[in-house]
Amino acid sequence: MPRYKLTLEYDGTPFVGWQLQENGLSVQGRLAQALKAFSGEDTVPRGAGRTDAGVHALGQVAHFDLARNWEPDKVRDALNAQLRPDPVSVLACELVADGFDARFSATARHYLYRIITRRSPLALDRNRAWHVLHALDTAAMHDAAQALIGHHDFTTFRSSECQAASPVKTLDRLAVASAGNAISIEASARSFLHNQVRSMVGSVKLVGEGRWTAHDLEKALQARDRAACGPVAPACGLYLVKVDY
Amino acid sequence: MPRYKLTLEYDGTPFVGWQLQENGLSVQGRLAQALKAFSGEDTVPRGAGRTDAGVHALGQVAHFDLARNWEPDKVRDALNAQLRPDPVSVLACELVADGFDARFSATARHYLYRIITRRSPLALDRNRAWHVLHALDTAAMHDAAQALIGHHDFTTFRSSECQAASPVKTLDRLAVASAGNAISIEASARSFLHNQVRSMVGSVKLVGEGRWTAHDLEKALQARDRAACGPVAPACGLYLVKVDY
Repeated sequence: MPRYKLTLEYDGTPFVGWQLQENGLSVQGRLAQALKAFSGEDTVPRGAGRTDAGVHALGQVAHFDLARNWEPDKVRDALNAQLRPDPVSVLACELVADGFDARFSATARHYLYRIITRRSPLALDRNRAWHVLHALDTAAMHDAAQALIGHHDFTTFRSSECQAASPVKTLDRLAVASAGNAISIEASARSFLHNQVRSMVGSVKLVGEGRWTAHDLEKALQARDRAACGPVAPACGLYLVKVDY
Repeated sequence: MPRYKLTLEYDGTPFVGWQLQENGLSVQGRLAQALKAFSGEDTVPRGAGRTDAGVHALGQVAHFDLARNWEPDKVRDALNAQLRPDPVSVLACELVADGFDARFSATARHYLYRIITRRSPLALDRNRAWHVLHALDTAAMHDAAQALIGHHDFTTFRSSECQAASPVKTLDRLAVASAGNAISIEASARSFLHNQVRSMVGSVKLVGEGRWTAHDLEKALQARDRAACGPVAPACGLYLVKVDY
């Protein structure tokens, strides 16, 4: 059976998340429905990352098999036609080798977290960024964040619901930059624990507020204790940007 | 009576436009309602530009008078509280001189028009940019657009419903730039005719498609005839960015 790889963009706002659930609209479920509608086949795509409710994607990747050998561009266009009017878009469809697995073949995942700091509510960026009312010291945030780079036990920054076998991961990049009152935090790793990016961002933000020092952040990591984590940053600021294979 | 100046951001998608209308949610009407709710006074703010349904603002300006002398920051916060959950945000409120008029005191208006060129539907930029299916020659668009700069009779690029006394305006800037498949067109003038930016963008896009030459665009301007205009670009790509005083 031919295996297909999809690259997907979505606005996570109306979804219960990537993962198929009994109640509510999931991206995975919506794709399965669209695949069934155009091909007549029952298949559930597997994603590179299980984004939570409200988390967005600029380049989520998923794979699935179909009995029939379709022209990949035709699959892309047929899925896009079926996905209307929901805010999921198939950016690309490719035929891949049988051994390709969107989740396990990934060599790196790149996330972006967006914060906008201002007094007034967000109108155009509502549900697209974390709205923080006061200015943050982004240089301090960036400097402190570097302590998280490398091979660590990230238990502190892991959801209690995380199902990963091990809390040990290698974080390759955690870069904080600002342009005016817009802050971007880029995170890259081969893989992340559940809620890891949002947990790290929530704690790094405490440094930006002056409530934590860089040393506090380091101590939180070393504690290997979920209770040592700062408040988890909201889902709406997070974007799965790209997955490398 | 103290006069107040507001700087406003809004997502134009759910609105019938800036202007108060009997049917439908307008930004102006929503602001009047919010002003009444917090101050008890009946006043309708006057805007710098009457954005159409679906057109967004990053920096619309409006003014209004209130009998009472409020702290401007309190007005900003009170309006923002009243405007929830609609996507209008008061970025700033200032006390201004009696003679200030958001519309007539403006010395320049700056608009941005966003186009995204790709095969797949827009998910995150839906209703926030013009989705064009094929690539456009942005260098040709920019070069051709320069013929519109200056003092001209813009009848070709003016809505038949335009109420301006004269079709003669001075266009200061019309710059086309691209970053990947995202195209931005920046337009600046003291004032614009109704639908002028969207009309110019629609015609400049024909140059980008190779359907019009730069000379065709110049001829369209010189025709001073609405029938010579290309298809008007959709509202969702347009942003009122800033108004100078």
